[in-house]
Amino acid sequence: MNPSRAPLPHVHIVGAGLIGSSIGIGLSAEGWKVTIEDRNPKVERIARGIGAGHAPEAGLKPDLVIVAVPPSVAADEVVSALRKWPSAVVTDVASVKEPLAAAVEAVGLSDRYVGSHPMAGREVSGVESAQGDLFRARPWVVCANGAPAAAVDLVRGVAEALGADVVTTGAASHDAAVARTSHAPQVASSAVAASLAGLDPEDLALAGQGLRDVTRVAASDPGMWADIARLNGDHLRGALDRIVEDLTRVRDAGDIGEALAELVERGRGELARIPGKHGGRQRHWTEIVVIAPDKPGQLLRLLTDVAAVDVNIEDLTIEHSPRQRVGLVMLSIDPARAPELVAALNERGWEIAS
Amino acid sequence: MNPSRAPLPHVHIVGAGLIGSSIGIGLSAEGWKVTIEDRNPKVERIARGIGAGHAPEAGLKPDLVIVAVPPSVAADEVVSALRKWPSAVVTDVASVKEPLAAAVEAVGLSDRYVGSHPMAGREVSGVESAQGDLFRARPWVVCANGAPAAAVDLVRGVAEALGADVVTTGAASHDAAVARTSHAPQVASSAVAASLAGLDPEDLALAGQGLRDVTRVAASDPGMWADIARLNGDHLRGALDRIVEDLTRVRDAGDIGEALAELVERGRGELARIPGKHGGRQRHWTEIVVIAPDKPGQLLRLLTDVAAVDVNIEDLTIEHSPRQRVGLVMLSIDPARAPELVAALNERGWEIAS
Repeated sequence: MNPSRAPLPHVHIVGAGLIGSSIGIGLSAEGWKVTIEDRNPKVERIARGIGAGHAPEAGLKPDLVIVAVPPSVAADEVVSALRKWPSAVVTDVASVKEPLAAAVEAVGLSDRYVGSHPMAGREVSGVESAQGDLFRARPWVVCANGAPAAAVDLVRGVAEALGADVVTTGAASHDAAVARTSHAPQVASSAVAASLAGLDPEDLALAGQGLRDVTRVAASDPGMWADIARLNGDHLRGALDRIVEDLTRVRDAGDIGEALAELVERGRGELARIPGKHGGRQRHWTEIVVIAPDKPGQLLRLLTDVAAVDVNIEDLTIEHSPRQRVGLVMLSIDPARAPELVAALNERGWEIAS
Repeated sequence: MNPSRAPLPHVHIVGAGLIGSSIGIGLSAEGWKVTIEDRNPKVERIARGIGAGHAPEAGLKPDLVIVAVPPSVAADEVVSALRKWPSAVVTDVASVKEPLAAAVEAVGLSDRYVGSHPMAGREVSGVESAQGDLFRARPWVVCANGAPAAAVDLVRGVAEALGADVVTTGAASHDAAVARTSHAPQVASSAVAASLAGLDPEDLALAGQGLRDVTRVAASDPGMWADIARLNGDHLRGALDRIVEDLTRVRDAGDIGEALAELVERGRGELARIPGKHGGRQRHWTEIVVIAPDKPGQLLRLLTDVAAVDVNIEDLTIEHSPRQRVGLVMLSIDPARAPELVAALNERGWEIAS
């Protein structure tokens, strides 16, 4: 609750899937007045049952309407919300922003529309997976599209109430950027996964961690990606062109080794520009690999031993052997502390693989 | 030591880099007689200093020679070793196997040559990074190429002594398989990384976990990949063709959404065929996401609380917010135990994000 400040805005949510319901739960938990609707009565009932918002009363006058529907119908729903609630600011949550801004511009209602893109996607979807903390510590892109500051602040207030990390940008530059940082990498990942067709099971046993990393996002939902590709087609084609051009250059090179070395070099240069953890500070960690029996309690025992020498773990991943019940635990730590940690772990009986 | 069985073979290692020195350390620790040499006297000195093997005596007669040199010179070194030690079995560790088998066949010495590919690659290289446990719980491919059983058993014995997981296959099918499971995915990863060229730093701030996964292996060594691409060029070109064909089909489709949905579907079908953890049993885990302050001791506290309800953690990854000192810890667990674990963690004050 927020008794000492101006009353919290009334938020109405259209669409009670993963994103809409999660917003509703999070804002309700913060004491906001939230109503929610879904075209599917069962979904709407579940959303209300899990605390994502109340039923809208007759004559509803929300301050802010959040349209949380699939990308393919978002533009129609946003325009319809702007017309239905003529005093409300309207935002949406679609991962492509320019077509929405254009649709709203076309009907002359841009002064009450602000685009949002909460980057909290998951492999799962649906009201059943909703959680009020879904957006905590994740980027939430806000595209003002020339809307007045008060409208933008209303949307920003929602993102901040949910603990998200607000990033302000224009719709066009958002779409161009995500085509390259998200949409084209998804297509490439799926193409690598699809290229395994016809391999024998024994050959697939040689799949290592690298293949698993490259293809992880290939498990995503085909229908959602169809919508995104249609809405961001021009930017996506441009981003794919870059990738195809480089793959083709390697394939057709007179010296394939030289061509690949040049591509790997360029890729490493770009990787170094991706912001590191903690607000872009680039830090370099040392990875040590610990061999642990794959049974309950081993990870806890290991971390207890790490904590005993007061070393902070920056990152941790677990890799299992394909045929043995032994796990490799990769710990990323401050290089300056690595020799000390390795010695301490050896002393406590841990095998360090590398 | 192994006093009750036949005497352990004498192994001579040519090349004291990461792989050669790691083999030497591991076998020496198991009581094997190991000698090691490197064309670089400083590297050879370091290797001996860290226990990777002794200096070869005059008139050396090893039972097994392991050639652990860069892939571009492996064939020459293997043939030279077969000639220099006419009673020894010779193996190597290169990640492309057919050109080696052909080179040995061409000089008529195939009865003493067995190919190896220990799949323990790392981002680092050099004797300084060597560890005797590098191969533990990792696949070690053995290509017999028609060599007699006794020769194959000698090589298999090394892999087993080092704790590796032996996979037997033919040189041609090995090279065709790794072109698709390892080499082409590496090229695609580098092409995605390189495609980020020219993006503004603010746009790169929208890089999510998906991009980081797809581009992780793009950080690898350009020179090593140049060698591999040259040696496995035909298979690599074939594997790249499949990927380029699918990317081009999506790019040029009349309905890019339909084309991408079809590709994502096919990719998902192939992903499902990659063997799961623990010897290929496919198991499905539920992921729960915990919000933890990014400071020492939090992970330990979390795992202590997980252990208190006796839930095994199948996988664990940590994701940091780009601008907040809060980490998201993803725990993969048995779906049947998820509700109980979430309740227990909530009770102990943890925020579950999703």
